[in-house]
Parts: sequence; structure tokens; C-alpha cells
Amino acid sequence: MSKKTNDNKYWVGVDLGGTKMLVTLLDQSFQPCGRKRKKTRGQRGKEAGLSRMIDSIGETLEDGGVAPDQIAGIGVGCPGPLDLDSGIVLDMPNLGWKNTPVRERLEKAFGCPAVVMNDVDAGVYGEYRFGAARDVRCAIGVFPGTGIGGGCVYEGRVLRGKTGSCMEIGHVPVDPQGALCGCGQQGCLEAMASRLAISSAAVAAAYRGEAPNLLAAAGTDLSNIRSGALAASVKAGDKVVERILRDAARLIGWTCAGVVNMLAPDCLVLGGGLVEALPDLFREEVDRSVRARVMPAYRDAFEVVVAKLGDDATAVGAAAWAEHSQK
Amino acid sequence: MSKKTNDNKYWVGVDLGGTKMLVTLLDQSFQPCGRKRKKTRGQRGKEAGLSRMIDSIGETLEDGGVAPDQIAGIGVGCPGPLDLDSGIVLDMPNLGWKNTPVRERLEKAFGCPAVVMNDVDAGVYGEYRFGAARDVRCAIGVFPGTGIGGGCVYEGRVLRGKTGSCMEIGHVPVDPQGALCGCGQQGCLEAMASRLAISSAAVAAAYRGEAPNLLAAAGTDLSNIRSGALAASVKAGDKVVERILRDAARLIGWTCAGVVNMLAPDCLVLGGGLVEALPDLFREEVDRSVRARVMPAYRDAFEVVVAKLGDDATAVGAAAWAEHSQK
Amino acid sequence: MSKKTNDNKYWVGVDLGGTKMLVTLLDQSFQPCGRKRKKTRGQRGKEAGLSRMIDSIGETLEDGGVAPDQIAGIGVGCPGPLDLDSGIVLDMPNLGWKNTPVRERLEKAFGCPAVVMNDVDAGVYGEYRFGAARDVRCAIGVFPGTGIGGGCVYEGRVLRGKTGSCMEIGHVPVDPQGALCGCGQQGCLEAMASRLAISSAAVAAAYRGEAPNLLAAAGTDLSNIRSGALAASVKAGDKVVERILRDAARLIGWTCAGVVNMLAPDCLVLGGGLVEALPDLFREEVDRSVRARVMPAYRDAFEVVVAKLGDDATAVGAAAWAEHSQK
Amino acid sequence: MSKKTNDNKYWVGVDLGGTKMLVTLLDQSFQPCGRKRKKTRGQRGKEAGLSRMIDSIGETLEDGGVAPDQIAGIGVGCPGPLDLDSGIVLDMPNLGWKNTPVRERLEKAFGCPAVVMNDVDAGVYGEYRFGAARDVRCAIGVFPGTGIGGGCVYEGRVLRGKTGSCMEIGHVPVDPQGALCGCGQQGCLEAMASRLAISSAAVAAAYRGEAPNLLAAAGTDLSNIRSGALAASVKAGDKVVERILRDAARLIGWTCAGVVNMLAPDCLVLGGGLVEALPDLFREEVDRSVRARVMPAYRDAFEVVVAKLGDDATAVGAAAWAEHSQK
Repeated sequence: MSKKTNDNKYWVGVDLGGTKMLVTLLDQSFQPCGRKRKKTRGQRGKEAGLSRMIDSIGETLEDGGVAPDQIAGIGVGCPGPLDLDSGIVLDMPNLGWKNTPVRERLEKAFGCPAVVMNDVDAGVYGEYRFGAARDVRCAIGVFPGTGIGGGCVYEGRVLRGKTGSCMEIGHVPVDPQGALCGCGQQGCLEAMASRLAISSAAVAAAYRGEAPNLLAAAGTDLSNIRSGALAASVKAGDKVVERILRDAARLIGWTCAGVVNMLAPDCLVLGGGLVEALPDLFREEVDRSVRARVMPAYRDAFEVVVAKLGDDATAVGAAAWAEHSQK
Repeated sequence: MSKKTNDNKYWVGVDLGGTKMLVTLLDQSFQPCGRKRKKTRGQRGKEAGLSRMIDSIGETLEDGGVAPDQIAGIGVGCPGPLDLDSGIVLDMPNLGWKNTPVRERLEKAFGCPAVVMNDVDAGVYGEYRFGAARDVRCAIGVFPGTGIGGGCVYEGRVLRGKTGSCMEIGHVPVDPQGALCGCGQQGCLEAMASRLAISSAAVAAAYRGEAPNLLAAAGTDLSNIRSGALAASVKAGDKVVERILRDAARLIGWTCAGVVNMLAPDCLVLGGGLVEALPDLFREEVDRSVRARVMPAYRDAFEVVVAKLGDDATAVGAAAWAEHSQK
Repeated sequence: MSKKTNDNKYWVGVDLGGTKMLVTLLDQSFQPCGRKRKKTRGQRGKEAGLSRMIDSIGETLEDGGVAPDQIAGIGVGCPGPLDLDSGIVLDMPNLGWKNTPVRERLEKAFGCPAVVMNDVDAGVYGEYRFGAARDVRCAIGVFPGTGIGGGCVYEGRVLRGKTGSCMEIGHVPVDPQGALCGCGQQGCLEAMASRLAISSAAVAAAYRGEAPNLLAAAGTDLSNIRSGALAASVKAGDKVVERILRDAARLIGWTCAGVVNMLAPDCLVLGGGLVEALPDLFREEVDRSVRARVMPAYRDAFEVVVAKLGDDATAVGAAAWAEHSQK
Repeated sequence: MSKKTNDNKYWVGVDLGGTKMLVTLLDQSFQPCGRKRKKTRGQRGKEAGLSRMIDSIGETLEDGGVAPDQIAGIGVGCPGPLDLDSGIVLDMPNLGWKNTPVRERLEKAFGCPAVVMNDVDAGVYGEYRFGAARDVRCAIGVFPGTGIGGGCVYEGRVLRGKTGSCMEIGHVPVDPQGALCGCGQQGCLEAMASRLAISSAAVAAAYRGEAPNLLAAAGTDLSNIRSGALAASVKAGDKVVERILRDAARLIGWTCAGVVNMLAPDCLVLGGGLVEALPDLFREEVDRSVRARVMPAYRDAFEVVVAKLGDDATAVGAAAWAEHSQK
């Protein structure tokens, strides 16, 4: 952690998830100098949730010995649909939030500008500013988890939709006969290659007796088949689980080939818990398959890298985007 | 149950599964007149298993007041790979059987001819002789379970391979991007539309919160998502589970269209536990989709029916095939 | 040609196409001992066509010095839909034939039994009796031309539908996004891998400048891109045309994998003009792809061979089937 | 055409194709006030081609009574790969151009700034500035021709790659079993749904006798099956050709659904000769299919429109981009 002086300016980044929130305090060069992780306790409702977030920021500042007027800005990354311009969270069911004016409340509470953005966008922006895709002209992030999130930093700016975020790479259609997706469509990339899709295939393999280590360690309950369990199963020698993972990574690569052909990025950043648990497998397979499927002219025009910032990416990226928004 | 007299001839059918066996005693007109269901207790090994089967048949005869010399023949249906001509079970891992001379042992024990055949073939033959596909020129059976079994009765005979059974409709390739199959290939029909594949998709939907009734009733453990749980979930209103089932049935129909175009059957028989739990859903969707995808000349040339014999189908069919083999 | 004596019995085979007919005279061991090839002159109508066929047979006998009462039977292979039992050709638009009693007319004219059958079935039966699939338990023929014809000889008999032929392997659905098929469906095998589909892709490659030899030799008129032109283009070094052919052969193999999984044949016979023009390419690619996609248990259980009888296959096979039908 | 006065400033746009070039003179408000269309005569080589372009611009000015010093800028749209920053055409084989410094030569010849850009990008930018996608936040253009070109105007700027253009929507992978593409990959959108792919399928239908009007009017030579012939065939009642076109439009829509999910455009602009010949068919099918396949949240968030500027789009767009580049 970097040293602090009174004349420093600080930034605050918040990674607000359905069940947990992470508040990170950052110094002028965006080095973390304080962190607080809390459960969201969403069942207590909207006002309680807003207060909890504000209190957590307050405590983080206090712990770090930073006064509110030393804060230059606050950035919040969260998964729900947003109105980016007003900083309103349109819907976060886990928190009981509908049309919640997060930006306004934070600005009132701390007297500094705040931004609210998509968490994956924040993560990709974090990697662009401080991580694996530093300062490239065009970076595209792909984060397989329960779904598959995507984000794009193009010439220094996060690509966005009219009112909310965009780059829903998880919902690119890849297979007209494919699995049902959470979005209601069939054969979206994330219905076939997200961590959840992988776990669902792995649990079927365990059930058939083809993944003995996974079966022994995690049984056939899908809720137990998380990134760590998958990585451990591969390490223990479950060849079928490894193949399921590689097939999924290959499908991600196949889809990314279309994205590369359209956006000509310099860098594809793979991130999220599953990629962090199996970085080499994902980097290798995605790299190989995207390069094999891309237009020949683009074959050597981009890199495939693994995210570097880990759990900090969203909070750091959101804070950095708060800074960018003040320029 | 029909009345028995001493001059009657009887047949015995055995449905030998990995965990359970069903012995059925049948009169001259193949009406069941005795039944015994037992666990296989496979962990006790080959000799114990053979004895257990022979003892079960003996007890069934005794209960029915039938002497061994009244038995005209014995038919056994079982899932493992077989040598049909010699009646040797090549491999049933659950029973610890390798190259087990089932036919020879039964013939020795009861002094009558025996046949050993694939269990799905037996079920389809049963439906052909006494059930939903009675006496048609060509019947094709499709039974979705852990895999998807298939069988064909063509002009009175069960189609077969050189040494073993055939009609592996569950392993017809349907999707080059599809899920990994238990056979080691990718995108086989059964990897996408078997009860196991359906359960695996349903448990993912439950995990995402899209199948509240299934989640409440069965949780996220794949082992709990059996035919009854799926049917109950649909009945309780889980629209996403219904859609997963209909999508699977449609894919079965799409694949059957190719089979109809090749074998021009008069009758497609759908069977197995899941079809029995949701007969209308499966009949409707398969009927609609196979008719929509078949060559126009075949559109009205076949029926789609649901199996009628239920749990008896394999035992009855195997016994009837024993009779046919003596002609 | 074999020597003839008066006590010999002879057979006649007819390959009746839309524009040409081939009459072959065969001795007792089915060695050809006379041939006549004529245009059908279909525009002259049904009666003229029947007379033309009868006259051609008569001339072939005369040329061979064989009297009508030396003919043991006549077999006709033709492409249109048939009523096999009555030997009625239901529809051959090129000949203006509807419900034409070919069998009856031939039996009346020559006083011997006649059979009418599908031309591909006849070809496969010919290969089974005298060619590349001699005496195997189960042979499946795949003949890519304008469409893709299929046939199956199973334990000595040609598999058939209720009234007509079956084994429409060309209409197995392979790609839900695939090309429109002549049958009105989408993505049938023949819409993607027939000689016509290949030619259509090759002419597009020629148009784009990627097949210079084909372009120079045959231009961009689809009617000129026949088997010989494709083979010459490959030989001259048009890599793109070779790749189109190999992709098509691979798709045939992928589809055949499903057929092998269902019918467990001993032998896949590839035939037709295009295969004859490029036998090694087709045998290699189909062999490789079907073996790569079949269930592991079947991987080494069958052969892929190229038809041997060439233009004679249908006529010889139909005559041999006439013999078989008298047993 | 607008009136000109000496104090007006003018712009020049050039649409440089492989076989033709179109020079357009535009007034201050980008109204065309002069046009010249010439063959490129590419076989004469690089210097002759450059001179021919410069001479054509000169003649257009002269015809319009405009002096070179009244020209504010020149924009050139062309299909080959480019270095956008230097305005060098890297490769236009039809013209015999390799690394040709078009921008430098034009700036020298006319003493004003010039830009060189991709022709589809220019067309989409033209539609954004003056046509069907006027002033929207994000417009994506899809132009099916020999290939399928794409372009995106995002917040007033044309999205671009590191050195050249991007948005190769024609090379998004859509079908792993699909047709070979000109780029060397398999199953790209343009290999399945470009005008060339459509023509190739239509000519096969004509060959099979399923498109009698097309056959009568254009025969089976692919070179004759251009946009007008396809439109006339549909109008004359060739149902199969109409279906091929609708299937292609539907596949374009399916692919655009992924693009909408990623870039959240306000407007999809369909253009090019084939769309202009059948505007309702394409607009309807693409609209329906993209809306049916997009994420529910985006279903009503965009329009599908047909380009309005016709043949002028590229020249006008390139000139307007020249203006934008001077800001």
C-alpha cells in the first residue's frame, strides 16, 4: 500500500454485487490503500442497502485516515441495468433495488462527483488503465461466470449503449440448436460456455461416472461445482471435465473471432473467477481458436491475455472511470 | 392375470438392469402371470449375479405353480454390449460382468432355449407384438433416459449388427457445437435431449432462479432431477422447464425425421420413464417436429405413438423374441 | 463377353433414366453379354416410351442371338417414386409417365417375370452381388449426384418402405441453417454435399477468381460444372475446388456416422459419377470423417469402398434382384 | 442541383471500385452538383489509374465551373485494405495497385486535404450524415453484395481498426458446417447470405427446374444472376428464389442480433444493389429476425432501415468524412 499525505487526492471504487460489496480506497496513482468487503444484506431493502454502501465507504475512509473532502470522485460498478447518464440503477433484484439513484445519493453523501457503470465494463477499464491491456487502442474483455460478461474500451472510452452498457458478448447467438439461455433465447454463447454451462455439463459427467474426482469432491449438486471445484477436478485428472472446459473455451474463441473481425481489437482480456482458476487452459484454447477462425488479415493483429487485477478490477476500474469522466 | 393349466406352455422374460432385475412369467398368449423384482446387488460379482438371476426365475416359477419343464423359452433384455449369437454379455460394469455366458447358464439351469438381447430392442419388440406398434411393417422405438436408446422391428425381425444390437439413434450426430456425449463424441442426440441432458439444463435453470418449483422440490442436485421431478415441475408451472423439455423433444423429432427418411417406418414409438411421465408433451412435440422436417412424401406415412407396456415391455419383448427365435 | 449356348438362361437389366436408358443382357452368371444405350425421347409420351424400352430390349436380345423364351427375368431400375409390389412407376416427369405399369407391360411383352425398383437400390444391390460390397451382411450405398441417393442391402435383401424404396440418406437433416433442398426442406445432406451443391459452390469460387482453372475450362455456367470439370479443376491445381469437395465428402462422412451408428453396416459403398471421377479423394475423406465421428465401438467395424461396376451397376443389380425375387 | 457562387466551398467525393469510379462534386451543404462515372481501366497499371482518377476529378470541376482552390477537401472510398492514417491503398488487385499513396497524390494535385477510407464505411457515414440514419448515436450498416460489407458510425465517428477499417460483419462465423468463404474460412455470414451466395443457390434451383422464370430469363450462368435478375424472378413468381432470399435475409438478421447485443445501435442500415432491388423483402425479414433473436431488453431499442442515398452514398460519405476530419 502506498503512503498517504494530506495533500493527496483519493478515489473510491465500489464493486457492488448481488450478495457482496467491495469498497476500495485508491490514492492519486490508483494504488489501493484501503479495502472493505461486506455482505449486501439485500433482503433489508433499498434504503438499508444505500445506507450500508455509504457507511462502508465512510468506514473505509476512516480506516485509511482520509477525510471526505480528500475524495476526488467515486465510481461504482454493478451488474444490473443502468441509466448511465443519471447514475440510476434500474433493477437489482437481489438488493430489492428499482430505479435507485445511486449516483445522486453518493454525491450528496460525500460531496464529490460519482459515476455508476456496468461492473464488467469497469473491470475491463481497470485492465485497460492498470492491468493486462494497458493503454491499448482497443481492448475487449470477456468474463465467463454465471453468464459471460463483455466490455470494450475503444480509444480510451468505454463503449456504451444509448442509456446503459453494451457489449453483451454472452448473448451473441452461436448455435440455433443450442441450450436455453437465461435471457430467454436459445444458443447464446453464455448458455453454452459460461461457468454455469460448464458446471452443468460437468455435473452430468460426474453423474455418468466419467468425472470421478469431481464426483468424490463435490457430488452432483450444481451449487457445489464452482470454479475451484472445476480446477481441482482438472488437476486431479478428470479428463472429461478438462475437455468440457476446453470445448467451452473454444466456443468462446469461435465467437470472439467474429468480434475481432468487427472491432479489430489489439487485445482480448479474459477474466473472472473461472479464468483465474485455470488461466493457462483458457488463454491457450481461446488464443488458438480465435486465431484459427479470424480473418487471415487479423491473425497476428491482437493478443489474448488474462486479467491481472483479480478481485480489485471492478472497483479500481470504476474509480478510474470516475476520474476519466471529470476530464 | 390369465388362468393356468398344466398343458399350457410358459415363457420367461427378464429385464436385467444395472441396479434392478425384473423377472416376468408369461402364459402362452404372453399375458403376464407372475412377476418378481429384485436388486441386482452387482457388487457381489459375476457368479453371485448369475445365481441371483437364476434363483429369481426359479422363485417366480414356484410362486406361479409352474414347473421348469413347462417353460418354452427364456428371453433376457439387458443394456450392455452383447454377442447376440452366443448370448454372451460382453460388459456390464455395474454387475462386474465381462464375457458372461448368460444364455448358456440359463439353458443349463432350465433346460430350455434362451436368448439374450438389447433391452431397448426387447422393449420395441414387445410394443410391436403386444403394444403400441402392433404388427406394423416397420416400427422404430426411441426411449430417452440416461441416454437415448433406439430399436427397429423391420418386417417382423429386430434389426441387428454383425454381433450385437444396432439402432443407436442416441448417437446420431446432430450438432457439431453440441454437448459432450458419454460415448466420447460431441453433439450426439443423447448429449442434447436425453433425460440426463434435460435434467442438467433444468438444474441450471433452477440455479438461475428460473424454475422455482423445481428448485423448491428438488434443489440443485442433479441426482434428484428425475422424470417425476421434471413432470411435477412442469405441472406446477415452471415454464422454463417445460420449454427445455419441448426443445429436447423437438430435437428428437428433428433427428427422427432423418430416420424416417431412411427407414420409412409406419410407426415411431416413444417410451421410457420420462415419456411415460409426460406422454402428451413428448407425443405432440415429436409428432409436430418430425412431420415438419420429414420429406413431403413421408409426411402422412407414419404414426407417432407412446409405448403402452410400461415396465413390462423389455421382459415381455425378450420372451416374445425367444419364441420368435424358435420358429 | 461370355459364350452363349441355347440351354443357357439369360437375364435383362434396364437402367431407365430421365434422358437415357441402358439395356444390358446378362448370362446365367450375370456377366454382361450385350448392351444398348438409347435416349429416352421422353417428350413423345408414355406409350412411345414404353414401346421404346420394349423395342430396345428386343434389339438387345436379337443382337445377342438370344430368344425371348431364354430370358429368365427382367429387372428395371429407375429414379421415380414407385409402387414396388405392382411394378408401377408413379411419376417420371421427364418421360411424361404417371402410374405407368412397367412391370405388367414387360411381362406381357416377354413372357417372363419382371421387377421394377429404385435405381440406387439396384446399384447397391449390384455392388452387393458382384462388386465392391460382395456378400456382406449389411451394405449401405451413398451416391452423390444431382441429389444424393442411398440404398441398403441387409442380410441379402434390399431395405424398402411400405410401397416404395427408402434410405433417402440425401434427405437426412444435417444443418438447421443450411441450404434449401430440392425437397423443400432446409439443410438436407444433399443440399450441402451433392454434386450439384459442390458445383454451385465451385462456380461461386470461379466467379470470385479463386478457381482459375475451372473458370478457364468451364466458365461460370453451372450447367458446365459436371464431374469431369470438377476433377480436371482439382488436377489442374484449383485448391479451393479441392477444399469444397473435401468439405462435402466430410459432411457425407459426418452423416454416415449416424447411419453407421444405427444400421451397423459392414460396408459403405460410395458411387456415382463424381465419386468415380475422384475416387481417392472421396474414399479418403469419407473414411476419415465417418471413422472420426462414429461411436468408438464401431470405429473398426466397417469398410468404406468405392463402387466397382460403374455404369453397369443399376442394370446388373436390377437383373440380379429379378433373380432374387424368384426364389 | 443547388446553385453555386464563387464564395462557396466545394467538396469532392470519389467512389473508387475495381471496374468503375464515380466522382461527385458537392456544394457546401453536400448537395451533389456534378458527377462523372468512368471505367477504371485497371489493366493499364498504377500510374495510369492515378492519373485517370485525378483527370476525372479535374473534368468534374471544370464541368461544374469550380476552380481547384474552391475545393475544401476530397474523400475517396475504396474496397481494398488501407492505411487510413497515411491514405495509402495497400492492395487493389483489379487496379494493379500495391501501396499506392492516393491521399498524397490527390493533395499534391489539388492542393487541399484528402482522406481515403473504406467504401462501405463511407456509405454508412453518408447515410448517417444525410440519409437513412441521420444523426443517430450509433448506426451500423450492412451491405450484401459479392461479399457483405459492414460499417459503424459511433457517436459521430467511424469505428476503425489500428491501421485500417473494421466491422467485417460479413466474416462473423455463423455456421461451423457452412459454405467456404472467400476469406478462406468456413461458414462466414457472407459465404451464406451475400448476393453471390444467394445467386449461387438460385442458379442451383434454376438448374433443378425450380425457378422457371429465372431459368428462362438468365439461364444457369452465375454471372447473369445479378440483383436485377433475382428481383425479376421473385416478381415473376419464382417462390423458391424468394425463399432463398428470405432465408439469407433471416441469417443476416440472426447475425445482426449478436451485433445489436454488442453495440446497441439505434439503427441498422441495409444497403447495396440487392437491398435496393428488393427493399421491402430485406427490411421485413431482417427486422423480424433480428428482433426475434435479440436480447429482450433491446427488442424495441433500434430501427431497421434501408439506405436512401443509392449510388451516391460512398462518394458523399467520403466527402463528408473529409470535412469531419478537418474539425
